Amino acid sequence: MIKIAIDAMGGDFGPEPIINGLIAALKKDPTFTAIAVGKKDELLPLIPQKFDFRIEIIDTDDVIAMTDHATDALKRKESTAYKAIELVRNGEADAYVSAGHSGASMSLATLRIGRIKGVSRPAIATLMPREHGNTLVLDVGANVDCDANNLKEFAIMGQVYAEDVLGIDDPMIGLLSNGEEESKGNETSKEAFKLCENLPHFIGNVEGSDIFNGSVDVVVCDGFVGNIMLKTAEGVADTIGKIIKNNLKRSLVSILGAVLMRKVFKSLKVRVDYAEYGGAPLLGVKAPVIIAHGKSNAKAMKNAIFQAIAAASSNLNEDIEENIVKYKA
Amino acid sequence: MIKIAIDAMGGDFGPEPIINGLIAALKKDPTFTAIAVGKKDELLPLIPQKFDFRIEIIDTDDVIAMTDHATDALKRKESTAYKAIELVRNGEADAYVSAGHSGASMSLATLRIGRIKGVSRPAIATLMPREHGNTLVLDVGANVDCDANNLKEFAIMGQVYAEDVLGIDDPMIGLLSNGEEESKGNETSKEAFKLCENLPHFIGNVEGSDIFNGSVDVVVCDGFVGNIMLKTAEGVADTIGKIIKNNLKRSLVSILGAVLMRKVFKSLKVRVDYAEYGGAPLLGVKAPVIIAHGKSNAKAMKNAIFQAIAAASSNLNEDIEENIVKYKA
Repeated sequence: MIKIAIDAMGGDFGPEPIINGLIAALKKDPTFTAIAVGKKDELLPLIPQKFDFRIEIIDTDDVIAMTDHATDALKRKESTAYKAIELVRNGEADAYVSAGHSGASMSLATLRIGRIKGVSRPAIATLMPREHGNTLVLDVGANVDCDANNLKEFAIMGQVYAEDVLGIDDPMIGLLSNGEEESKGNETSKEAFKLCENLPHFIGNVEGSDIFNGSVDVVVCDGFVGNIMLKTAEGVADTIGKIIKNNLKRSLVSILGAVLMRKVFKSLKVRVDYAEYGGAPLLGVKAPVIIAHGKSNAKAMKNAIFQAIAAASSNLNEDIEENIVKYKA
Repeated sequence: MIKIAIDAMGGDFGPEPIINGLIAALKKDPTFTAIAVGKKDELLPLIPQKFDFRIEIIDTDDVIAMTDHATDALKRKESTAYKAIELVRNGEADAYVSAGHSGASMSLATLRIGRIKGVSRPAIATLMPREHGNTLVLDVGANVDCDANNLKEFAIMGQVYAEDVLGIDDPMIGLLSNGEEESKGNETSKEAFKLCENLPHFIGNVEGSDIFNGSVDVVVCDGFVGNIMLKTAEGVADTIGKIIKNNLKRSLVSILGAVLMRKVFKSLKVRVDYAEYGGAPLLGVKAPVIIAHGKSNAKAMKNAIFQAIAAASSNLNEDIEENIVKYKA
């Protein structure tokens, strides 16, 4: 039975949405159990008695704050994040989920759980919404300076995650660039293009707009570009939302219009709402690690836990290791 | 009187939208004249007799196609782009506007008109829509590999353009990064941050979302990141538009809703439609050069011509030179 280690205190809103998300996940999927690491006296009142036997609590007081330095995480051995990571490291849990300090989770996962053989740097992958389906993009923040070899590893890890966890057959892998032609790109991306040519699923360069149009399943970039892409997408969606909302206020007729279009807006929200996708997997470490948004609600936590279960139930890490050996040479 | 040199054949739709845009600009602004470079027998029928005296035609057959290499542009001395650039170089015209091959226009402008003293590399700037106003972003494509010094020059040129042409007093200048803290960034952007600290309008690092929320007026990045940002923004806006449209098709009630919301959509379109902004200035060359979108319609061309006039009527290039000298050391 799969066991998920959860940093139960780390999110922006305290333990409540985290435990509520966990309960929702336990209700829906009877095949897993959890270890919640946090302040026992705060966690216990949140857990209905009938879920007692499926949630073990490890009591600890220290929580790494969002304002703390990620580098301190390794010294804070009594922190919720550290203890939850150690459970995975020691084989007492199969996967780790946290909505806390993402830098701390990444450092702890990379240094305490360790990297998969052949992986130089773990990468954070995220699902970007499209009209139909999603596009997996990596790296979106773990590594701001990458060389061509790092990018190739991201391509391999992204391909395996798409196949093993997302269930996409023959995923199309693209390299994010400033144009589709092979001649486009900066120095590093052009070198990465050459390295990726032996990957069977590599389709070449893709542009920012391709992330959203369904022409590619996995998009590879460094964490600097990935973060800017992600924040740009959020900024545009927010702005369009605000323009619609503020224009609506101006006339009763358009309010009526909006009421009639409620279904449309609901569908739009579902497609752009990160809570639908849960969290972002850190690929390249020896066990599934899911980094959830600090502002995760219960639904986002539930989905992050399902992502952890899906990864832990798959051959993800064995297949990453095998493919890195096969294609990196 | 300001004289604008126009590559009259270069766009995706031939000379018609270009000349129509020119006529619309001449109607609105009686203070300038134009030189249209193109096939005389195709251009003449498009020009109403009463504008004859304000449009000089320079007859030439050769047009650089979108599929041609930018490097060929320098050899194609009979091409519309080359001849129009030469008019500016020789002082026969004050500014250049083209909807043709943008790489060709950039190469010709940089090598034939020449760079402003102290500018290492010209940069393409573009206006991104916000709920209120716009944000100027540069570079969005001219330079894929930049060093810290290039980025600082972009900051200076962007500031001067915001002041002199956009009329923004005390524009806020930000460096595009993966977080707002000074510690964020890749190697090059962190170095650029240090170099920019002596610029009076520099506010530090900004994120992708800040481009759209009004917290910054000028955003600086390399052309690789700028292009990806631009295409991402277009992709998200397109996708949201498609989701709305396709959901509308599904029910008569939501069609009624959409009719009632027509004004909202119109306002949205105005804010995201590049035709409203015309073209993108190439900053750092010795005369105003406006690169219009290949798919420009007459309205976009008209606005591109107004941008050229605004730049030619300002002290843009003198001020760029002065500020580069003042702050680069």
